[in-house]
Amino acid sequence: MNMIRNDILIKTLRGEPAERTPVWMMRQAGRYLPAYRVLRDKYDFFTRVQTPALATEITLQPVDQIGVDAAILFSDILVVLQAMGLEVQLIENKGPFLPDPVRTSADITRVIVPDVEETLGYVFDAIRLTKKELNNRVPLIGFAGAPWTLLCYMVEGKGSKTFDLTKSFCFSQPELAHRLLQMLTETTIAYLRQQVKAGVDVIQLFDSWGGLLSPDDFEIFSLRYMRQIIQAMKNETPTILFAKGAWASIPELVGTGTDCVGLDWGIRPETARKMAGNSVSLQGNFDPARLLSPIPELKKEVTKMLNSFGPGRHIANLGHGILPNVPVDHAKAFVDTVKNHIYKNRGKEVFSSL
Amino acid sequence: MNMIRNDILIKTLRGEPAERTPVWMMRQAGRYLPAYRVLRDKYDFFTRVQTPALATEITLQPVDQIGVDAAILFSDILVVLQAMGLEVQLIENKGPFLPDPVRTSADITRVIVPDVEETLGYVFDAIRLTKKELNNRVPLIGFAGAPWTLLCYMVEGKGSKTFDLTKSFCFSQPELAHRLLQMLTETTIAYLRQQVKAGVDVIQLFDSWGGLLSPDDFEIFSLRYMRQIIQAMKNETPTILFAKGAWASIPELVGTGTDCVGLDWGIRPETARKMAGNSVSLQGNFDPARLLSPIPELKKEVTKMLNSFGPGRHIANLGHGILPNVPVDHAKAFVDTVKNHIYKNRGKEVFSSL
Repeated sequence: MNMIRNDILIKTLRGEPAERTPVWMMRQAGRYLPAYRVLRDKYDFFTRVQTPALATEITLQPVDQIGVDAAILFSDILVVLQAMGLEVQLIENKGPFLPDPVRTSADITRVIVPDVEETLGYVFDAIRLTKKELNNRVPLIGFAGAPWTLLCYMVEGKGSKTFDLTKSFCFSQPELAHRLLQMLTETTIAYLRQQVKAGVDVIQLFDSWGGLLSPDDFEIFSLRYMRQIIQAMKNETPTILFAKGAWASIPELVGTGTDCVGLDWGIRPETARKMAGNSVSLQGNFDPARLLSPIPELKKEVTKMLNSFGPGRHIANLGHGILPNVPVDHAKAFVDTVKNHIYKNRGKEVFSSL
Repeated sequence: MNMIRNDILIKTLRGEPAERTPVWMMRQAGRYLPAYRVLRDKYDFFTRVQTPALATEITLQPVDQIGVDAAILFSDILVVLQAMGLEVQLIENKGPFLPDPVRTSADITRVIVPDVEETLGYVFDAIRLTKKELNNRVPLIGFAGAPWTLLCYMVEGKGSKTFDLTKSFCFSQPELAHRLLQMLTETTIAYLRQQVKAGVDVIQLFDSWGGLLSPDDFEIFSLRYMRQIIQAMKNETPTILFAKGAWASIPELVGTGTDCVGLDWGIRPETARKMAGNSVSLQGNFDPARLLSPIPELKKEVTKMLNSFGPGRHIANLGHGILPNVPVDHAKAFVDTVKNHIYKNRGKEVFSSL
């Protein structure tokens, strides 16, 4: 770990003083980058994901071209469902599609807890190659989808605004739901452990659809499984836990033992910090659509966000993935504004090395 | 107003003691009711909306069949866009579609602030007929979409998970956005005034997509326009303001002067009450998908919600519209559980007439 030259992300996750606020962007390796679009036009989605040389090339693009403080492996949360025996297609510009979703006890017999080394070896190969190519410039983030979010796709069979089918499944057949969630949890723990073994420096758990549940149901169908995962991983690597829309459960997210809670733009940074306490880092929370503002206004908005979080224990990021139609110079303006920011009333205990 | 026999909704909105907690359901006149489906199969959507006898029949169905404490006029928020000169189609099971969305300054020339009596007369006719048929059994709620939510459809041209096109429009061309929002506001005020004149007893303003904006952008693109509407209406009729997902702005929603703030299920009732203070009523906030639970569990969940809100200044409702696949007896169980609920530690100052 000490060998990573730009280690401000790791320091911030550990609560150690860092030179400045680190910055990266969810989906930073993706469609807004012309270099990515070239590869997208040549290879289909899962070819890009499953070919280590391609995944590595895509992972490095934003490090080289945008100057972010971390790389995040180019992959997809749904590879875990493929490893568990389900067919997953990704339809360009439309999203995921599972021709045979899981909705009955008969369907469950098709789902397995796989040997991840056998089924997801290409991910670990991509991690090893990316680490080599990164050559310790910045840390590499590995990731997985939260069990609840994976269940959403498993049951619904595609994206949805509200995932009503999945919620209906959980509320009417809770035992089946919990059996699947536990299988997803075990697979995810094995998967993340292998990612760490292959070399990732940080892991992020994405619960994109946690906010669709009430706070009580979030505990029942999501949080208790994420807690198992964070507990299993916390001695292996720093963790970031991002549950979009689940602001009401921020204290419980902190209670999982994670090093960092990711936030979307629906919450004011000050409110989030008050709810989270001072023992964790916070990550976020710029509205991805705000990157479409003219650059001077974008800079003003980023500055406002940074001052609201204040210095220390903050990782600057978007509140969700970057949109495909963001101009590259706008993405770069976001990153550069963070890098050049000077806090009013800077807490010198936090940025002590400055 | 005094003539309405079941007036507990009105009393609760005014902060007066009521016999019990009133209950109704958003989209209570809709697809989950077999009687509605019969009419849906005979007449297309806008025929149902534009024919006063049909709109009245549909409006009364849940009053007769489910026993709710209020009727809400069967209509659609998008009729305002039609009145403003835009073509709006509603594709069954798919949602709204505008063949010519508004995205440029040239497009704006197609948008007018209409004479609402001329363009939306069928709504006021339906209100008059419904009031007659209701015969003062329960109050009638009229409604409109918030300017921001209407702008979303106007620009995007259809439903969306994130309305990125609309946000991009607002962030890159704020002057055009504000011109449209002000036109929408003026039309909406005129529209709601005529609804009151025709006989509605309460109005609800729906900001279905307010929660897609950050708290600061919600103020800029939504709240300031809703404030104008609530201020214009508050001396005419009790108002309910529902901004889905905009929990972070609850104090500001209260600050509009509305009598009641509607809540979705993402927030705990206790948190909402703490943020709202004691000067307004709160409406909500049962997860619509939770109506799919087996009835005994459904009742347990409704009871938990009622106790969390506590007696008085609460209108029991869902946190969003009822889903089409909810069995009628489940909807009825929701309503009956509210009607039969006995609060632990009941505040006798609130239900003084018991």
